Amino acid sequence: MRKVLTHFYHVPLEHRRDDGRRIASYQKIRNRSDRRMCRWAAYRGEPLYLEELVTSPAHSLIEQSHCATRAKTATNGDGFGIAWYGDRPEPGRYRDILPAWSDCNLRSIARQIRSRLFLAHVRAATGGGTRRDNCHPFVHGRWAFMHNGQIGHFEHLRRPMENMLADDLYAARTGTTDSELLFLLALQFGLERDPLGAVAEALGFVERLAEQLGLKVLVRFTAAFSNGQDLFAVRYASDRKAPTLFAAPMGPQGGYCLVSEPLNDDDNAWAEIPDGSAVIVGENGVDVRLFSAADAPLREPASVAPVARPADKGVQLA
Amino acid sequence: MRKVLTHFYHVPLEHRRDDGRRIASYQKIRNRSDRRMCRWAAYRGEPLYLEELVTSPAHSLIEQSHCATRAKTATNGDGFGIAWYGDRPEPGRYRDILPAWSDCNLRSIARQIRSRLFLAHVRAATGGGTRRDNCHPFVHGRWAFMHNGQIGHFEHLRRPMENMLADDLYAARTGTTDSELLFLLALQFGLERDPLGAVAEALGFVERLAEQLGLKVLVRFTAAFSNGQDLFAVRYASDRKAPTLFAAPMGPQGGYCLVSEPLNDDDNAWAEIPDGSAVIVGENGVDVRLFSAADAPLREPASVAPVARPADKGVQLA
Amino acid sequence: MRKVLTHFYHVPLEHRRDDGRRIASYQKIRNRSDRRMCRWAAYRGEPLYLEELVTSPAHSLIEQSHCATRAKTATNGDGFGIAWYGDRPEPGRYRDILPAWSDCNLRSIARQIRSRLFLAHVRAATGGGTRRDNCHPFVHGRWAFMHNGQIGHFEHLRRPMENMLADDLYAARTGTTDSELLFLLALQFGLERDPLGAVAEALGFVERLAEQLGLKVLVRFTAAFSNGQDLFAVRYASDRKAPTLFAAPMGPQGGYCLVSEPLNDDDNAWAEIPDGSAVIVGENGVDVRLFSAADAPLREPASVAPVARPADKGVQLA
Amino acid sequence: MRKVLTHFYHVPLEHRRDDGRRIASYQKIRNRSDRRMCRWAAYRGEPLYLEELVTSPAHSLIEQSHCATRAKTATNGDGFGIAWYGDRPEPGRYRDILPAWSDCNLRSIARQIRSRLFLAHVRAATGGGTRRDNCHPFVHGRWAFMHNGQIGHFEHLRRPMENMLADDLYAARTGTTDSELLFLLALQFGLERDPLGAVAEALGFVERLAEQLGLKVLVRFTAAFSNGQDLFAVRYASDRKAPTLFAAPMGPQGGYCLVSEPLNDDDNAWAEIPDGSAVIVGENGVDVRLFSAADAPLREPASVAPVARPADKGVQLA
Repeated sequence: MRKVLTHFYHVPLEHRRDDGRRIASYQKIRNRSDRRMCRWAAYRGEPLYLEELVTSPAHSLIEQSHCATRAKTATNGDGFGIAWYGDRPEPGRYRDILPAWSDCNLRSIARQIRSRLFLAHVRAATGGGTRRDNCHPFVHGRWAFMHNGQIGHFEHLRRPMENMLADDLYAARTGTTDSELLFLLALQFGLERDPLGAVAEALGFVERLAEQLGLKVLVRFTAAFSNGQDLFAVRYASDRKAPTLFAAPMGPQGGYCLVSEPLNDDDNAWAEIPDGSAVIVGENGVDVRLFSAADAPLREPASVAPVARPADKGVQLA
Repeated sequence: MRKVLTHFYHVPLEHRRDDGRRIASYQKIRNRSDRRMCRWAAYRGEPLYLEELVTSPAHSLIEQSHCATRAKTATNGDGFGIAWYGDRPEPGRYRDILPAWSDCNLRSIARQIRSRLFLAHVRAATGGGTRRDNCHPFVHGRWAFMHNGQIGHFEHLRRPMENMLADDLYAARTGTTDSELLFLLALQFGLERDPLGAVAEALGFVERLAEQLGLKVLVRFTAAFSNGQDLFAVRYASDRKAPTLFAAPMGPQGGYCLVSEPLNDDDNAWAEIPDGSAVIVGENGVDVRLFSAADAPLREPASVAPVARPADKGVQLA
Repeated sequence: MRKVLTHFYHVPLEHRRDDGRRIASYQKIRNRSDRRMCRWAAYRGEPLYLEELVTSPAHSLIEQSHCATRAKTATNGDGFGIAWYGDRPEPGRYRDILPAWSDCNLRSIARQIRSRLFLAHVRAATGGGTRRDNCHPFVHGRWAFMHNGQIGHFEHLRRPMENMLADDLYAARTGTTDSELLFLLALQFGLERDPLGAVAEALGFVERLAEQLGLKVLVRFTAAFSNGQDLFAVRYASDRKAPTLFAAPMGPQGGYCLVSEPLNDDDNAWAEIPDGSAVIVGENGVDVRLFSAADAPLREPASVAPVARPADKGVQLA
Repeated sequence: MRKVLTHFYHVPLEHRRDDGRRIASYQKIRNRSDRRMCRWAAYRGEPLYLEELVTSPAHSLIEQSHCATRAKTATNGDGFGIAWYGDRPEPGRYRDILPAWSDCNLRSIARQIRSRLFLAHVRAATGGGTRRDNCHPFVHGRWAFMHNGQIGHFEHLRRPMENMLADDLYAARTGTTDSELLFLLALQFGLERDPLGAVAEALGFVERLAEQLGLKVLVRFTAAFSNGQDLFAVRYASDRKAPTLFAAPMGPQGGYCLVSEPLNDDDNAWAEIPDGSAVIVGENGVDVRLFSAADAPLREPASVAPVARPADKGVQLA
């Protein structure tokens, strides 16, 4: 039987109540033929070689990227990335657009580098071309961020979302994905100061924006992010169909691993984190909290007002 | 002596007068150690194998990309691209981030494909990472565009320039270069309707914008673009130091070639197009006109007003 | 019901007899979870845009490379390639190591180029790293070649196979795959002079070599190749479990398409070519013949004798 | 004036005598327009961030790869690689075919990883396509190897050189360069047991082989290699025109750096290692020795006898 989360951390009452329902709903979700899911794994604890999550286990990320066994998903062949914290304040990062399974560099780096906190991601493009700038994890200063999920109608939301960004964050955007933009928005809303609050505000902003533009609200967001000290993860969806999130103890002396899909078939090892949760892996172990997008209204309509521009493509500027 | 342009087209009086000075100034420019120039070549005429401009001549684009002989420039190793018109209304395109000289695909494609109108470019990155989306030529609908030059203070101008774009053109931006953005602006200003007028307006817009933001105006722009019928080129700089532009008859029956640098050492073959010119290669041969950026003022300050956004990164939306 | 081959060509008696058995055996094969199959398509006929086989159909090669629908195979994300015959004697070729589904260049090239004879391949690496040199089709002079299948114990057979090659063919080997080596061996055995005979000899050589070295003989070979005039294909396996091969009329005026997997679900359109067959698509339509590896003995043991070399890694050359 | 080597190690008498002549000859060499030189740097000492040699200095390897300042060389845009020793017995490695100057991964890795022994290389292809398998350093077991130089007539020597390799080393060859092959030959001749002796034998073997085949002997070889304990370098050429080699103290507490070209303009810092030398950087500091290729004759002609193969491409094996 699947291990109960309370074995290693406090589970909020609300979660306990509907634990059964949630796991059942997870089973249903992962039987859908959802072809384009990313997968990721993150670790915080005593230094561990990256390969222990990335290449070694029977169901490591690389193996998963090649042939997903649990869900009838297609492969994740649109690139990969790893970010790890070492001696520097900012994380190191390696990402490339090859399928992860055929990248010798990744194998070698994952075998050499040990880290007390790292994030790894394999990508199945939902939008944004296959190029390095669109590969997770995204990095800004000390922060690293990776994501599995999607924003519905992103093609209509992208521009007003980008308009929200301060100049330095706007300039920092180099790719075209919704994931990178959510990360930059979270930075804009104060990720440095209040990580989970800022993410909640960023997600709420997107939901309010969609409403305001008359679009169906759809945000599915299972993400991990870190400042080099704590490892955060969120599982949230506006339609309660968030991609899965699991946790397990790993490595020597109280390390923890968070993953989008269990890395092996040992059901006892992996505890599912319920939809509507945030996880903090820090000095004092694992903490799980209720999480939902902030529901504050957009400050004022002006903030997403269209920019004046020459009507009709070609009118004189006079 | 360098061939006089009048052999094959009408030269405006203004150009004739200072022909000597201009060529002298070109000599000076190309002796500077300007390390980061792109190079390009374009052709219109009876169908020609791409390799005749791209790989075959002693000083073909590929050879130039590897070891520039005339100017003491560094190499152009940040990618390349070709766009060619065939049976389809829109051009075909092949671009990659490898140095052009080591790309077997390019060699094979250039050897197989014949086209009546094509553009080829090797890139030396002045800004924007090395990735396919940043490689010229850029293509939108039937239009292809490539560029050698730069916009001064682009880091400050980028955002208001992007704000000018209509939604569909904003969404069409996939890279981060000033070149792609100038192309999209030209489309915004009516490239389809009035190609040279739209480019003049786009350049004028950038100059006015820089003035308005209190920045030193610096636009250097030597570009070629086409709709599949006519081949256009512009040599213009706000400081009269535009990258060079040359023309020569090429191929069977009245074809012409436009290049940023002569493809061989035959000085008689290549006529320099003076700074401040536009060239149209069409049904009736080559036409050269005076060209400068439009000097109309920005329509109103509002058009580049900053978008309202949460002050101070993290203020509540309420 | 599946269309009978005799509608458009003569089927050898031997094939007719066991047609039922063979198709049944095919059904079994494609239900196995054979994760690492390449897929290919080839065309000969009136000029056709490459995209009609490569990107357009519901089950085009690109779509197949991403999510194989018939067989429960994994994806083909280890690169792709196309070779097409145009005006030149030798074919053009474009190949890259990205997954085919994320390559914009491929889409554009396939949309622009029309050819009367072309080969297209998506790769799932069975051996040999992911790099361009290992992507099919392989090209030598006027010949193009692509392959789906495998040689058992290739790691032991590779060196004596390479030793067989004449110096120019040895020097022409740039990759590490069994497929490229089979192609070079076929050239060695006279592909130019007697295409099917040379392939039969190359396959027979590999089988004899395996026997001589005491290895289990296993050669599975479903390949297409061309000199720019005729299109050849072979379906053969030493264990009668050759990867599938199908044919269908395609395009205007008597063109034919050969594929490793049907490009759409119209079972009536695709005729299966039985195991142990060779197909020639030429001026006079399609011809199917019995095919098997040549069973002539190796000329003499000397031909694969190990080369004298310093014993024990490090003995003096004296 | 250039620092005298004796400041930090013992210089053999033979070297001292002609020091002046050698440096003069170096000046001449680097004024030749030798367009296709690789460059490398290696370090052994207290752990140092890779970036100190790879990206940081004014004339770091990356800067050199982009715009060589001393010699009028072209750029090194055909890939790069780093190998570093950490906790594992075998080195880590990262290599790619992009120009080094545009690779964000390299920058990040070089900034994160500290190592007590590492090798870094930027490539200018003299032969072998641009692909990862052809990028230095080459790695086999605990050994890493990188090279600047060339073998004359390699196209004729390649096959008999490959024939010399034991099966496991033959199978380990994945690229097509002369450099990788020299490394494998050195392993064949006992690199593990007697590093400098094995390299001397490998070079001698190539020279004898060229003589035997009636080819002009030309081997230029400036290489660095390591087993994770000691750092070795060799500067040798059959025509005494070996690419340059320099040494300098670097990093904290007695570390040393070996480079193909000085990393900065401080002539006092860099001591030139004379042609015909081997360098060992180990526990006890730097040791420089005379070095030349072994002149033992090839053991017997049989060892490079051509393999029997079907005459005339296509003769029956019977």
